[in-house]
Amino acid sequence: MGEKTHRPPVWLMRQAGRILPQYRALRSKLSGFKELVETPHLAAEVTIQPVDELGVDAAIMFSDILVIPEAMGLPYELIEKKGPFFPRTITNQADVDALLDGPEAANELSYVYDAIRIMKQELAGRVPLIGFAGAPWTILSYMIEGSGSKTFSKARRLLYTNPAMAHQLLTKITKSTIAYLKNQIAAGVNIVQVFDSWAGVLPPEMYNKFGLPYIQMICDAIDEVPVIVFAKDAWFAMDDICSLDCNVVGLDWHMEPEPFRAKHGTNKVVQGNLDPTILYADHSVIKQRTNDMIKQFGGHQIVNLGHGVYPDTPLDGVKCFVDTVKQYEFNKVV
Amino acid sequence: MGEKTHRPPVWLMRQAGRILPQYRALRSKLSGFKELVETPHLAAEVTIQPVDELGVDAAIMFSDILVIPEAMGLPYELIEKKGPFFPRTITNQADVDALLDGPEAANELSYVYDAIRIMKQELAGRVPLIGFAGAPWTILSYMIEGSGSKTFSKARRLLYTNPAMAHQLLTKITKSTIAYLKNQIAAGVNIVQVFDSWAGVLPPEMYNKFGLPYIQMICDAIDEVPVIVFAKDAWFAMDDICSLDCNVVGLDWHMEPEPFRAKHGTNKVVQGNLDPTILYADHSVIKQRTNDMIKQFGGHQIVNLGHGVYPDTPLDGVKCFVDTVKQYEFNKVV
Repeated sequence: MGEKTHRPPVWLMRQAGRILPQYRALRSKLSGFKELVETPHLAAEVTIQPVDELGVDAAIMFSDILVIPEAMGLPYELIEKKGPFFPRTITNQADVDALLDGPEAANELSYVYDAIRIMKQELAGRVPLIGFAGAPWTILSYMIEGSGSKTFSKARRLLYTNPAMAHQLLTKITKSTIAYLKNQIAAGVNIVQVFDSWAGVLPPEMYNKFGLPYIQMICDAIDEVPVIVFAKDAWFAMDDICSLDCNVVGLDWHMEPEPFRAKHGTNKVVQGNLDPTILYADHSVIKQRTNDMIKQFGGHQIVNLGHGVYPDTPLDGVKCFVDTVKQYEFNKVV
Repeated sequence: MGEKTHRPPVWLMRQAGRILPQYRALRSKLSGFKELVETPHLAAEVTIQPVDELGVDAAIMFSDILVIPEAMGLPYELIEKKGPFFPRTITNQADVDALLDGPEAANELSYVYDAIRIMKQELAGRVPLIGFAGAPWTILSYMIEGSGSKTFSKARRLLYTNPAMAHQLLTKITKSTIAYLKNQIAAGVNIVQVFDSWAGVLPPEMYNKFGLPYIQMICDAIDEVPVIVFAKDAWFAMDDICSLDCNVVGLDWHMEPEPFRAKHGTNKVVQGNLDPTILYADHSVIKQRTNDMIKQFGGHQIVNLGHGVYPDTPLDGVKCFVDTVKQYEFNKVV
């Protein structure tokens, strides 16, 4: 990473999934999403599909950030067309106290590490494998809310009504996440990404207290492989995120390349950040927007979308995006 | 507005609604939310409830931004616990062409103007009455998506796949909205607010093309009363929003008072912006946070939350917030 190449590397968040016909064919034969997550050879199969089909420069292990709350003691379900659901949530101190944490929680996830070993074997060095985990604030949000939410108001209010309990829960999640990422690395992942999907629901002051310090602990603890931090909608925290001990900063589609570089320089590689809805447009639009973005970031970039690819994105739009990056040449005027 | 007072004025977005027991009692007797919106004396009753119960400094008419798409030809439903739903949506040019617009659409909404006249009579000058409408981008989003959405990806993709149709639709919505606000003003509202609830889903470049110009047309057209513009999550557009021909800029809970004032000065009155989840906390926390915010904005502020009050907020938390503002004195150290 950070080496000079004639073009930037490219992969897509959520590339292993419903955009691929191979995935949909496999998925239709299974009882549900969790069977895919928990069956190592199937998780490996769908992880490698986009490498074969799209020619992306990295694989990202097929899994879900919610395996961590489950390993800590809160099982999750994935309800078709509705999203994640936790039959039990965290409502009081006893609930927090009852959670497993650290290696004890992480060691519950042997199916993930088994899957990684199969992925590495089947990739056979073709491209690097990316591991991942949710950031502690995002994981806490699900453990309190029990599902997605428009406002995450239950999780947010906990920070004002019981900050001590919030810090205890975040600490347990952080310890579990560090152990989980270290286990992923031991099993073979070459890089890890921390996703803070709900960073953007907090006021800056609260994110400074309850979000960033826990991401920092993770970054400080992981020195075996490069770390990507993607805190969606955390525009207000970019100075601090760019100061973390991580290698790559993920950007959502609100961050404009030139102002970003002017403000934050090139001390981090950036990852992102095309608006995923551009992939529904004519190929001429996809090509122009992709080329413009790469040019504006001026290198130091892992090309990606600014969010996970939307499941109904046309496959030929995704291919056009990947191919455009692969045909890019830094020294050529495009 | 803008006059020197010993304390700033205060009201809450969504103050007429489920936080009040009087509202819940009335609502439980009705067939649904739309009956309340469309029955002038009932809409007036719930508009005035928070003035009596909370002692806020303004009433906001009880209504919904989705009356405009309905007046243009797309009826909406409000499904309990799910939110708005449009049985028909805009899918092609013929759908756009078939929509009413301008005064023809706005004149469909006589129940709103009737309600305003009753509200004005019953308020009898106690406090000003705020009218409102959705911003054109937000209204387009609902007309394309047919409901709320985590990503509004259908609406966003239209801007890349058929920008000409998007501009036509936005133009029709804007003409209808201007006529609607002018009718509200003629019926008696003293100030109007434009809500761009989904401003934050667009990349800056697209918001500059498809969001702001239409808000600007509305601001330019309304010169009878002060205009408040609240574009939620549009941090990237604050320079442009502060340059609009409006009087007040609404801020969500991500905008920190001191950096905002340093960057944007005091050329606009700001409205906002306490994190609504603070109202669930202990009264000592509510008081301190509210006093700190007012002090940090240093005047030029209409105190409000950074978003609509959440429906399950404890009434005594809301009262504590309002009372704290009413006890504030600019020249006293708090």
